[in-house]
This record gives sequence, structure tokens and C-alpha cells, in this order.
Amino acid sequence: MKFIAFEYDGTQDIGILDSSTDKIAPLGNILAKHIDNNTHDLVALIKYFSEITGILDNQKGILDFSKVKLKAPISNPPKNIMCVGKNYFEHAQEFTQSGFDATSKRGDNIPDHPIIFTKPASAILASEEKIKSHKNLTKQLDYEAELAVIIGKQGTGIKKENAFDHVFGYTIINDITGRDLQLKHRQWFIGKSLDTSCPMGPWITSADEVDAENLNIKCWVNGELRQEANTRDLIFDIPTLIETISSGITLQPGDIISTGTPAGVGIGFDPPRFLSSGDTIRIEIEGLGHLINKVA
Amino acid sequence: MKFIAFEYDGTQDIGILDSSTDKIAPLGNILAKHIDNNTHDLVALIKYFSEITGILDNQKGILDFSKVKLKAPISNPPKNIMCVGKNYFEHAQEFTQSGFDATSKRGDNIPDHPIIFTKPASAILASEEKIKSHKNLTKQLDYEAELAVIIGKQGTGIKKENAFDHVFGYTIINDITGRDLQLKHRQWFIGKSLDTSCPMGPWITSADEVDAENLNIKCWVNGELRQEANTRDLIFDIPTLIETISSGITLQPGDIISTGTPAGVGIGFDPPRFLSSGDTIRIEIEGLGHLINKVA
Repeated sequence: MKFIAFEYDGTQDIGILDSSTDKIAPLGNILAKHIDNNTHDLVALIKYFSEITGILDNQKGILDFSKVKLKAPISNPPKNIMCVGKNYFEHAQEFTQSGFDATSKRGDNIPDHPIIFTKPASAILASEEKIKSHKNLTKQLDYEAELAVIIGKQGTGIKKENAFDHVFGYTIINDITGRDLQLKHRQWFIGKSLDTSCPMGPWITSADEVDAENLNIKCWVNGELRQEANTRDLIFDIPTLIETISSGITLQPGDIISTGTPAGVGIGFDPPRFLSSGDTIRIEIEGLGHLINKVA
Repeated sequence: MKFIAFEYDGTQDIGILDSSTDKIAPLGNILAKHIDNNTHDLVALIKYFSEITGILDNQKGILDFSKVKLKAPISNPPKNIMCVGKNYFEHAQEFTQSGFDATSKRGDNIPDHPIIFTKPASAILASEEKIKSHKNLTKQLDYEAELAVIIGKQGTGIKKENAFDHVFGYTIINDITGRDLQLKHRQWFIGKSLDTSCPMGPWITSADEVDAENLNIKCWVNGELRQEANTRDLIFDIPTLIETISSGITLQPGDIISTGTPAGVGIGFDPPRFLSSGDTIRIEIEGLGHLINKVA
């Protein structure tokens, strides 16, 4: 199933998208009726999914997808979005060699353990919404196409072999980064967390619909293909990431792990090719739709 | 005023603590009556503070402080807690020289720009609650006494001279850290985010009650004084931190900035003195009470 958040007629709602008919079955009222919870967003749906799963199968698409305003599928994760640094070989090399990584020396390319940093909910943006250029803060805005994992079931100490039991689904994240800020503040939070620096969507595809360990990722800037890879090439795969993070940190329904970007980001070019106002970034991941954002 | 979160008779509530009588005036019902919001915790109180401030003055303490179970004042900040690394000179030196900082070389002690990393809400712990030792994950658990700033008013691009207009109050945070994890994962998120690694409290003291730029901080482990400093010695002071973070990241009511720890943490000793099961860490900040936690 494809779960979307949207605005229609001035009201926020969530729903199931039938991509064969482009119709949406709204779910807000169903959640309000069946779930003892005050908020009726996709985090609540994920949290109480087992209680309503039978009801969801019977919902009919009644709204035209073309008539709603798409929202980011999750705007209030329990934690900041957990992002993985340097998780594809070629990108780990291009990033270390660029000199923008305060945590590595040249030659020290491939991490021995997952590198995790975060982006706050305040940075989340929907597909089709505009990315702020933050011209007064950064001269080096960059894009990063990533597969994001949405946690479904709470867990601590999750073993690799059970990791996928804790996954609800997947979406696309563009891990927008101010490279100069990422370097000068040493820890990456500020460079990764500017408002609008976390485009996410277009929706959440449930885990049963895709083989997350074998998905093609592509990213274009202004129609030019910049990134092209497959998730089977992750250095630390999804089970390893879930086992590593959850070993001491409780994962909660609605938590998001963005798995890292492949080679081809702006700093991978010589000279670097940073984003400018008017640029459009389009990311496609097989089975997950596309995420498209223009820089304001 | 001192705002506390507590549990009484099996119910979660928030209230105002009168420290002269040790009585609490409960506020949950008042929030439910006056605020169109579904949650009635201190984040909601902070968010809608201007709407209820007149009502708060008339509340009478009716519950004995000794009879309630203290909770962490904020358990659901809008973002992960934003923490500042290496923000006192002597601590910046002891940390760099310890070899545990993946982002600096020896000799490169004092940061030119604030170093910001985060801890998730899932790590938050109340005073008197027990810190998990996570023995299977870290052999090098350490303490860090810190002044934490609670944001009151939303803002982006806040200038230093207006920074304190956006502060609601202050509390104490113990930035518990797995040093081995902090080093091996390069970015500090995992080493700083283990469950129970963010003791916070005992309550929030409103900004008008203290001069946050001149507060003594002390930290004892098992009764031995380990850290002793004053917030006037912060490298990046509170207005600078608020200006820097908010320059591109919208600060929201209930956001928390933990301002960094002074010298005297476990890795500051030779040999290092890490925490063990049974150790008790007590932190006092002038005017803010004390935060006390034992390692399980």
C-alpha cells in the first residue's frame, strides 16, 4: 500500500493511494473512530497499524490525487531523522577526498562503523515544495538522494535477522546539506538541518511492495543524471543499521533512518557543482515514486 | 516560577512548585480548560504560555512535593535535544587531549564555531531515575554536567540582542556519553543517545528567576566533587548559541539547547575515571536545584 499525507479543501488528512486509478481513500475519520489517540497522522497510523489493518483493506479511493496538495508523509517523527554518512563506497571516497569531512583524514575513506547524525522535523519538506537557498548562510548547498526506512514496531536490541519485522515501509529523502556549514561546525547537525533541508516523500510505500535491498536510485539535477546506484551496494545494509542503532537506542514507530547517498553529489565533481536558485532536483527510487523539489 | 512534571496517584500531570512550602499547584486541568490542544504537558504550557500567564499567578499549592514521583520536565521536545560540544576552554582541552574526539587533532583544542550534536527524546530520564550501564555496548560511560536552555518563543534568524526574548527557562542536563561509541562512530549521535543517557531536571526554572550567564555548576560522583565552573566561562554564550542555531534552523517552543560541560569529566583524568554500576552523579546549578541519578 501507498500511504500519503495531503491537504484537501483546507484540511489535513492521510490516506491510501491507489496508483492504478490515482484515487485516494482518506483515512483520518477511520483513525478518529478506531484509535484512542488525539492525532491522526501517519505516525499514529503506523503505531496502531495492527488494530486497523483489517479495516484498511476495505477503503475505496474517492479523491483524485491530482486535486490534493501533497504533504510530507511524516512531519513529526518521535526522533530527529537518523541519517547515515558515507554508506556507499564510491560516495565515501568522493566525500573524504573533497576535504569537506571534518571527521576523516584523506586516505581514511571507508568507515568501520556506521556514522549516524540527525536532521530535525523542522527541516522536513514535501515533494513539489521549494527548498530555501539560505544564501546568507551557505555558498555550498548540495543534494543527496537516499532511501529512507520507516520504523513500524518499537524495539531495542533488534537482531539483524529480525530487523525487517520492525520496518513499516520506505520513502525517499533528499539530504540537503550546506557543505561549508557541515565542515566548519565539525559535527554535521547544523550543516544538515537548515529549514527545508529534508525533502521527503512522495509517500510511504509499505515494506511488502518492494525488495528494499535491491532498488535502483537515480537523481537528476535540471534533467542531468547525477546519481545512479542500487541499494544492494550499501556498505552497512538495513539490518546492520537497525541492529547497530537499536542496540542501545529504542526505535519507535514513525522513526526514520535515511540510509545514505551514493556517489555523484555536488562535491563529487571537480570543480564542485553546488545547487543554485532555480535548480530542480528529481529523485526516483524503484517502486517508491519520485521526489521533486526546486531551489527557491 | 518552577514548572514540574510529575506522577501522582497513577496520573501524569504538570504543575508549579512553590519551593518555600514544597507544595505543588497542579496545572493539567487548567491547560485542558483554557488551551485548544490535546496534550497537557510542559511543551504545551510553554507554547501557549502567553494565553494563560494571568491564570497561573492565582494557583495555590495543594500537593506535597514529597508525595509525587518526579518526571523529566520535558519528554517530547519538538527536536532532539541540541547539545554543544567543547564549550568550556578547560574541557575542550581535556577532551581533545584524551584522544576520544574523532573531529579534532591534538593541538586543535578550541572550536572556532559551535559544535552541535543531538540526543533523542527516547534518552530522557528524570532525576532519581536510574541510568542503565549498557555494559554490553560501552566500557567507558561518562558524565557531563550542563546548563540547558528551554526555548519559549518560536524564531528563525534570532539576533544575539534578542536571544533571551526566546528563552522560557532553564534546567540541568547530564549529558551521559559512551566514550568508546562516541569515538568509533565518528559523529557523536550513537555515543550520546543510549536509552537513559539524558537525565534532565529536576524541573524548569523560569528565566526571570536566574542570571543564566553567571551560575555556578557543580558535579559530584559518589560525593567527590569532579566538576566546578560558572556559566560565564562558556566559549559560545547563550545568545551566540541561539543566534547560530536559529540562523537557518527554526527554534520552537520546548526546544532544548544543552550548553556544554566544563572540565572534570571522566576522560579528563589520567587514567580516565568512567562510571560503574552503583555510582551516583549529583549535579547542582545555582537556582535550578539538583539532578541526581544512580547508575544501575
